[in-house]
Amino acid sequence: MTGQLSLVSIGPGALDQLTVRALEVIRAAEVVVGYKSYVHRIESLLEGKTVVGSGMRQELERCTEAIRWAQSGKKTVLISSGDVGIYGMAGPAYEMLLQAGWSPEQGVRVEVIPGVSALNACAALVGAPLTHDFCAISLSDLLTPWAVIQRRLVAAAQADFVTALYNPKSHKRTTQIVEAQHIFLQYRLPATPVAVVTGAFREDGGAILTNLAQMVEHTIDMETTVLIGNSSTFTQAGLMVTPRGYGSKYDLAAAFAAS
Amino acid sequence: MTGQLSLVSIGPGALDQLTVRALEVIRAAEVVVGYKSYVHRIESLLEGKTVVGSGMRQELERCTEAIRWAQSGKKTVLISSGDVGIYGMAGPAYEMLLQAGWSPEQGVRVEVIPGVSALNACAALVGAPLTHDFCAISLSDLLTPWAVIQRRLVAAAQADFVTALYNPKSHKRTTQIVEAQHIFLQYRLPATPVAVVTGAFREDGGAILTNLAQMVEHTIDMETTVLIGNSSTFTQAGLMVTPRGYGSKYDLAAAFAAS
Repeated sequence: MTGQLSLVSIGPGALDQLTVRALEVIRAAEVVVGYKSYVHRIESLLEGKTVVGSGMRQELERCTEAIRWAQSGKKTVLISSGDVGIYGMAGPAYEMLLQAGWSPEQGVRVEVIPGVSALNACAALVGAPLTHDFCAISLSDLLTPWAVIQRRLVAAAQADFVTALYNPKSHKRTTQIVEAQHIFLQYRLPATPVAVVTGAFREDGGAILTNLAQMVEHTIDMETTVLIGNSSTFTQAGLMVTPRGYGSKYDLAAAFAAS
Repeated sequence: MTGQLSLVSIGPGALDQLTVRALEVIRAAEVVVGYKSYVHRIESLLEGKTVVGSGMRQELERCTEAIRWAQSGKKTVLISSGDVGIYGMAGPAYEMLLQAGWSPEQGVRVEVIPGVSALNACAALVGAPLTHDFCAISLSDLLTPWAVIQRRLVAAAQADFVTALYNPKSHKRTTQIVEAQHIFLQYRLPATPVAVVTGAFREDGGAILTNLAQMVEHTIDMETTVLIGNSSTFTQAGLMVTPRGYGSKYDLAAAFAAS
């Protein structure tokens, strides 16, 4: 009896932001494992299934639980908010499987179902900030030394990447976002556009367009993603846009008028 | 009569990698505009609609066309492969609208439907390479000076970002991927894991796990995304995994055995 473990992305919020494939796999599952508030978000899909919800910081327990259920022969889904492969549960799940000697040729079948990560979602809500090179940096120093994160912030700021900050702030972790702001201010103008997006594609969510100088004056929490523009990013009419380069090479208004 | 312009992500390949929302919006559309091979990919959804497909490098023509149809009162969809907001058509479409004086308060309604970008898709196919900080760099110097791209490659390599290379190579553009490799080899070991993924989630697609020293020996084209691991990324059992940090902090095998 060989089980199936599907590592499934449930996207940023509303159910219609899941991929068709993610929905199918959840519907076909016998067991669904996840952080309890994410499980709650897909509750309408869970009738008749074994549901295992657990608390924050219990990532390894969730992996173990999901692997055990899959090994027992059940079609098991382990969910992550956003994209399961981007700072999500796909990492620890595969690490645990591999360290326990699993391989794709024997034991449970494992698949990753990609989805809409926070950066994809936030970008869509505020305009088109990710039309040029970008990076994602998590400000959580729980498992990564702050010196490593600092070095990446400096590199991102220096090399003019549009930058998405994941896990910018929590109740206990409040200084990192301020330090990130200070690093960026050494390389970019105070007026550089910044989007502060909390709960993207959720009913209680909201997006604020601000700038590098003022970004920390807004409410930022564990549900927030912060997008810092590059040196070409502009805001107009309430939208944040990073040009791909078309504007400098062609006259867009003329192209439009002439067509 | 106010039209609707939806900038829609059609994901990496198979139709089941679209979000539910993207499918709904395409189904409800009266006009669908896109690069012809992307239009072809969603052909089964297009019956009864006005379809405007055009060739490569005609991004501005597609924007103009889509905006005109929306202004005429039609429910219009402009599609991009992957995520429309990540190096996609959302950028030039918004730029063109804004330069023509449009604002969200007047004229056509505009929305962006996020989706699964190449980096999300490729990561899912090869394991869990994006569990830590990453960046995306396009190697196309058509609209970006090569010096800017070089600077970003150096920054990404130095600061140990997992790096997704978009547009790594075309018929005419063949040296950039080799230069990118040389830059990374200055900062990372030749054995650093690299994934070369072409046509992710398409029937003719394939993923190859290789390393920094050998990556350019594999077929790389316009449909390829190259993922370069960071200094902690490893391959095992045919999978590419970047640890989030759990492995160094906990003993995963023991956690698993003890549970």
